Amino acid sequence: MKTRIGIFGYGNLGRGVESAVKHSSDLELAAVFTRRDPSTVKLRTEGVPVISADQLKDWKDRIDVLILCGGSATDLPEQTPACVKDFNVIDSFDTHARIPEHFANVDAAAKNGKHVGIISVGWDPGLFSLARVYSNAVLPSGKDYTFWGKGLSQGHSDAIRRIAGVKDARQYTIPVQEALDAVRSGSQPELSTRQKHTREAWVVAEDNADLSRIEHEIVTMKNYFDEYDTTVHFISEEELKQNHGSMGHAGFVFRSGTTGMNDEYSDIIEFSLKLDSNPEFTSSVLAAYARAAKRLYDEGRCGAFTVLDIPPAYLCEQSGDFLRGHLL
Amino acid sequence: MKTRIGIFGYGNLGRGVESAVKHSSDLELAAVFTRRDPSTVKLRTEGVPVISADQLKDWKDRIDVLILCGGSATDLPEQTPACVKDFNVIDSFDTHARIPEHFANVDAAAKNGKHVGIISVGWDPGLFSLARVYSNAVLPSGKDYTFWGKGLSQGHSDAIRRIAGVKDARQYTIPVQEALDAVRSGSQPELSTRQKHTREAWVVAEDNADLSRIEHEIVTMKNYFDEYDTTVHFISEEELKQNHGSMGHAGFVFRSGTTGMNDEYSDIIEFSLKLDSNPEFTSSVLAAYARAAKRLYDEGRCGAFTVLDIPPAYLCEQSGDFLRGHLL
Repeated sequence: MKTRIGIFGYGNLGRGVESAVKHSSDLELAAVFTRRDPSTVKLRTEGVPVISADQLKDWKDRIDVLILCGGSATDLPEQTPACVKDFNVIDSFDTHARIPEHFANVDAAAKNGKHVGIISVGWDPGLFSLARVYSNAVLPSGKDYTFWGKGLSQGHSDAIRRIAGVKDARQYTIPVQEALDAVRSGSQPELSTRQKHTREAWVVAEDNADLSRIEHEIVTMKNYFDEYDTTVHFISEEELKQNHGSMGHAGFVFRSGTTGMNDEYSDIIEFSLKLDSNPEFTSSVLAAYARAAKRLYDEGRCGAFTVLDIPPAYLCEQSGDFLRGHLL
Repeated sequence: MKTRIGIFGYGNLGRGVESAVKHSSDLELAAVFTRRDPSTVKLRTEGVPVISADQLKDWKDRIDVLILCGGSATDLPEQTPACVKDFNVIDSFDTHARIPEHFANVDAAAKNGKHVGIISVGWDPGLFSLARVYSNAVLPSGKDYTFWGKGLSQGHSDAIRRIAGVKDARQYTIPVQEALDAVRSGSQPELSTRQKHTREAWVVAEDNADLSRIEHEIVTMKNYFDEYDTTVHFISEEELKQNHGSMGHAGFVFRSGTTGMNDEYSDIIEFSLKLDSNPEFTSSVLAAYARAAKRLYDEGRCGAFTVLDIPPAYLCEQSGDFLRGHLL
C-alpha cells in the first residue's frame, strides 16, 4: 500500500512535492489543501481533489503524511504545531536562529497528538546539515565552511523591492572562486563575509527614479548588503522576465580537518549541490522524509525530529537487504 | 564518563583509531589487543596496556566498544561474529559482494550475545554509501557514479607483487578528468570501466628480469588490469620508498538526477573526499561510530547495523540541542 501524501499550500514548493510524488512509486498524492478558493487551483495530477484548508481535519484518516509548503516567516511557526496534533507532518522551516524554538513547539504538540513532525527539511537546513554533522563527527579537529550560490536569494530580492523607486528586482548570491580554492587547498583560511560571497542585483527602476540613490541604498543596506561587494545592474522589466526567471541554485559544504597523533595529516570533505530548480529539489527532500515520518509513526514514535535524528535507510523505498546489497 | 574503546589489531588502522581517540574528548583508549607478542607492540599513548588477544574475554566489563582493525579477507569474517558475542564492535569490512553474508553472521551472533555490531564502517563502504543512499532517496530518477583516487590500491599492488620477477610495486587508481567533467555537466553519460579510471603501476623488478614480459602480464591481467589503460613504470627500490610511501587517497560520489513533472530540471549531488592518510581517516569514521554503538547498546538495542541504520546525531559527542542550534 502506498503512503498517502497531503500537500498543504500549492505554491512553488507544493508543486514540487506533486512532481516528487510522481517520481516515487511508493507515494501517492491524496489531496492538496489550499487557503485560496479551491476552484481556482488547478493541479497537474489527474483525479486528486483540491480541498479548502478549513476542511483539513476531515482528512485525518485519509492522509499518512502532510507536507507543509508554507513560508518560514509566518506560516510554519503556526501551521506545523497546529497540524501535527492530527497529522504526521514535514516542514521546511529554514530560519536557522529560530529552529530550537520551533522544534520545542512542534515537539510538544506532536507528543500531545501522538504524531511525528519532521522539521527543517530541505537542503539548508537539511542535506547541508547532514554534511556538517557527519563531517564534524568524523573530523573533530577542523573548520566548517558553507557557501551558497550561484542562486537567487528571495530575502535579498524582497529587501531591494522595498526600496522607493524599485519596481522589481532579483538578487543573486555568488561564492568567490578564490575562497573555494583556498578552502579546497586544506589551508583552513579565515574568511570574512566579504571574502566568501559577492552579491549581484538586477533592478527594474520606476520611471524617473534616482538610480544612484537606489544603488547607494542597496549597497549600504545593513544586514543585507553592507558586508558584501554588491554589483547593481538596472535593466528593463522585459529583460528581467526574460533573463532572470531561473530558480536554479547551488552550494558547497566543506570540512577541512586534521588526523594523526600530531595532526600531521590533512583531509577535506566536500558536499555540493547544483540545482536547476531550488523548489523542486527541496520538495524532493521533503518527499523522501515523508517515508521516514510514516515509518517512525508505524513504529509508535512521536514528537519532533530533524534530519539528524533519522536513519538514512528510513528515507528509502527499498528494503535494508536491497540497500546493503546494492548501495552500501 | 568517557566511552572506553578497545582496539583489536595494531596495524595502520589500529594506530589510526589510537589517534582518532586522542581527537575525541568523550572517548578513552582502554586497551589494545594483539595477536603478536604484546611486549613487541609499542603504543604512542601512555599508560594504555597492550594485551594478548587470548585474554580478550577478561576485558568484557572494561571495554564499552571494541574496534576491530583486521583485514576483510580472512580476519573480520571470523573476528566480528566471534567478538560481538561479548562486546559491542565496529568493523570496516569492505568486501562489497560479501556484505549481506557478513551482516547475517554478525546479526545472529550479536542478537545471541545481546550486543551491537556495526559493520562496514569507513568511507567506502561508509560515508560513500551514505552519499549514495541519501541522494538516491532524494532523486529517485537518476544515475549514480563513484570514482576512486588518486590513491593507492592495496589489492592491485599485491596482484603485481605476485608476478614472477617483481620485487615490489605500488599501484595508483586515477579518475579520468574528462569523465568527472562529463558527470558534472549533468549529461548522465554512460561510462565504461576504461573511461572512468586509469591505473598507474610503479614496479621494482628483480635483477635481469624480463621487463617487457612483466609489463605485458600486468596490463593484460584479468579482473585487475585488462579493462583499464595501465601505465607501467620501472623504478629502483630506493625511488619506490622515497616517492611512493604516501597513504593519501581520494574519491567522488555523484548522483545526477531529474526533478519536475516532466523531468525538465536536472540536479547534481556531489560528495568528495581528499585524504592525506586513508587509514587515519577510515579510523576516524570507526571512532565516530563507536559513539553510536554505545548509544544503541545503552538503549537496549542489539544485532547488526550498518551506517544506513544509524541516526547521524548518534555519531556526535554534542547534544541534540547543541546540534540543532549550531549545525542544523
